Amino acid sequence: MLKPDRLCAFSDGVVAIAITLLVLGLEVPSVHDVPEQELRDYILGALHPILGFVCSFVLIGIYWLQHYAVFHFIDRADRILVALNGLFLMCVSFVPFPTGIQAAYRDDELAMVFYGAAQVACSLALLALWLYASRNHRLVLQGISPQAINSMTWRIAITPVISLAAIALSFLNLTAGRLIFLAIPVVHLSHHKADSEWSKANDSVDASRE
Amino acid sequence: MLKPDRLCAFSDGVVAIAITLLVLGLEVPSVHDVPEQELRDYILGALHPILGFVCSFVLIGIYWLQHYAVFHFIDRADRILVALNGLFLMCVSFVPFPTGIQAAYRDDELAMVFYGAAQVACSLALLALWLYASRNHRLVLQGISPQAINSMTWRIAITPVISLAAIALSFLNLTAGRLIFLAIPVVHLSHHKADSEWSKANDSVDASRE
Amino acid sequence: MLKPDRLCAFSDGVVAIAITLLVLGLEVPSVHDVPEQELRDYILGALHPILGFVCSFVLIGIYWLQHYAVFHFIDRADRILVALNGLFLMCVSFVPFPTGIQAAYRDDELAMVFYGAAQVACSLALLALWLYASRNHRLVLQGISPQAINSMTWRIAITPVISLAAIALSFLNLTAGRLIFLAIPVVHLSHHKADSEWSKANDSVDASRE
Amino acid sequence: MLKPDRLCAFSDGVVAIAITLLVLGLEVPSVHDVPEQELRDYILGALHPILGFVCSFVLIGIYWLQHYAVFHFIDRADRILVALNGLFLMCVSFVPFPTGIQAAYRDDELAMVFYGAAQVACSLALLALWLYASRNHRLVLQGISPQAINSMTWRIAITPVISLAAIALSFLNLTAGRLIFLAIPVVHLSHHKADSEWSKANDSVDASRE
Repeated sequence: MLKPDRLCAFSDGVVAIAITLLVLGLEVPSVHDVPEQELRDYILGALHPILGFVCSFVLIGIYWLQHYAVFHFIDRADRILVALNGLFLMCVSFVPFPTGIQAAYRDDELAMVFYGAAQVACSLALLALWLYASRNHRLVLQGISPQAINSMTWRIAITPVISLAAIALSFLNLTAGRLIFLAIPVVHLSHHKADSEWSKANDSVDASRE
Repeated sequence: MLKPDRLCAFSDGVVAIAITLLVLGLEVPSVHDVPEQELRDYILGALHPILGFVCSFVLIGIYWLQHYAVFHFIDRADRILVALNGLFLMCVSFVPFPTGIQAAYRDDELAMVFYGAAQVACSLALLALWLYASRNHRLVLQGISPQAINSMTWRIAITPVISLAAIALSFLNLTAGRLIFLAIPVVHLSHHKADSEWSKANDSVDASRE
Repeated sequence: MLKPDRLCAFSDGVVAIAITLLVLGLEVPSVHDVPEQELRDYILGALHPILGFVCSFVLIGIYWLQHYAVFHFIDRADRILVALNGLFLMCVSFVPFPTGIQAAYRDDELAMVFYGAAQVACSLALLALWLYASRNHRLVLQGISPQAINSMTWRIAITPVISLAAIALSFLNLTAGRLIFLAIPVVHLSHHKADSEWSKANDSVDASRE
Repeated sequence: MLKPDRLCAFSDGVVAIAITLLVLGLEVPSVHDVPEQELRDYILGALHPILGFVCSFVLIGIYWLQHYAVFHFIDRADRILVALNGLFLMCVSFVPFPTGIQAAYRDDELAMVFYGAAQVACSLALLALWLYASRNHRLVLQGISPQAINSMTWRIAITPVISLAAIALSFLNLTAGRLIFLAIPVVHLSHHKADSEWSKANDSVDASRE
């Protein structure tokens, strides 16, 4: 019904907009009043929201990369895939809200739980999409090996696991919980063994499409 | 004059932006003040707006899918089609406004009427576009059967009919009116008989374009 | 240096975002307070801003169509073209500001002058881009006839002329000035004689590119 | 792993949105109150923010052009390139914040330092991306000459150098510091000798890709 590349292009658009809207959460004082605060204090007060901006930007960036990787393997779409993709996009475009909440309620564990839950929702939606598409090669290219599929599954599953750990740790120590999120880009940027399986699969996809 | 694929790409952009801007309707307290409300109360108070966000997100997502399906059949464009497409985009990009109104005036029937009317406007604009393009195969591919055209017409006509029912029901019971909107994604996700006609037409379009 | 199609795709993105951001000018009451106004009064008060939204949406839509038509004829780009295109995009993405000013200062001639001036700026930037590209076939396809170039020039020149007339008329009567803007889509949607020249040129471009 | 053209298309989207969001920094009075200020005073008060809008628009436009030029030479991507590209996009999408700060704190040197620092960050991120990709032809096309690579390096390095000069000058005289930013588009629009190397390289890339 829907060609995956068109679905993918639309998804890219939504993700690119969501990631760029994050900056609107960084408030700017009115240009028509004399600002109430000293600029130094204003910027210091904005440091926490800026860190939240950076964190959400990095996480959405990683979701985009994984979404791209997933659709590299998918060669057809059905209604369920479209619905799961819509769920993923809805979760991603919701992220600016918990990011803002977390910036305003900076000392509140519940804000971190809400923020972490939104990240869990994004990554679980992506995981569901991938599991649905790859189960018995339902919608993926036939040539993909089971090892490559498993490798991808584990990559995607890392993010919700780390996010859940961050939520749990926040109850002990908020700063520690926040630092845990740092592990997500570190894990994704570092090479790991599973990668070689995945790379081989990837190369064979490229070869078969040329 | 205009190639449909370019028109389609621009439309995708506008729809992707409108769907992502919905999140801005979920207000976030200022990061430079101590928040007035307890976070628990704040999130509870935001539940209704979040449901509105989800509902509008799903509806705009469905308009996008239908717009995509319609343009899959269209192979040329004229001024009237461009104008009708512009009307459709204007209606869709207006949706964040009634969504916000509905969130603020949650106990007011008029807010539901306004919200429902915006959905009726979106779907009627799409229906008008399709009827104009498909009448006597004016702008659609010659190989499309009348059955496939009728099938598409009925699919598109479902949304304004359900939206009108939701408006009517809101005068009796606001919650019932809102629940009716749920029928739209349910109907569109479920398989129905008309689909087989439409799928066949779709396959033949794909074949003829390859 | 820059391929026109890439420049064009980027421009499409900017225009699509500018046209969709217009809705943010329609304010929504806070979802966390009981609204101060009756909804009926609120919507009545929003009618003027909504009309401004519609007007700006239609005008930006027309600029997009003309930009598309212009780039259909252009087959290479240089630094000056890139700069003129940037100027055009800057004017278009500025439009939400005068649109908002016009909505807030609805009884003020100066607001209409400011709004009209922004439209003049958009259309003059596009005209400058076209005149630069088409002068002595500098950057347009060689096969375009002088008649087709003139026809395009007049089409683009209509908008700044009507906008200037609207500004002038606003000093006599604000409503009359506003109504004049309606002439822009009417003129662009109606067929006129010059079109046949332009269509012929267009068809030959399509043929030569296939 | 990632094809550069897909990465490039996503980057275009983010940059196009960031450049268009700048207009939201120009505040508009509420449409539901009688405006407090005379419109003439309001617009005069908005002149400084509008100049900031123009300056940031031009700078982001130049980053986009340079990003385009850089990716014209790159023919494959790796994890580090993706991460550096993400850093560049994060810096660019952050620009609306310092632009707003600079508009609100117009007489404060710190605001100019913050604004200039954001521009330095954008251009250094782009420079890092280019140096990483071009070092020993790591990710660029083999046919690019060392002269063409150096020429590109100097082009990109101009912006952070001028931005640093603007920051330094701001401590002596704020207006002088601001005027220095004007040098960036002037330098980039003017032809310079290095260009011929770069153009030759560019032409050979185009030839080899056709």
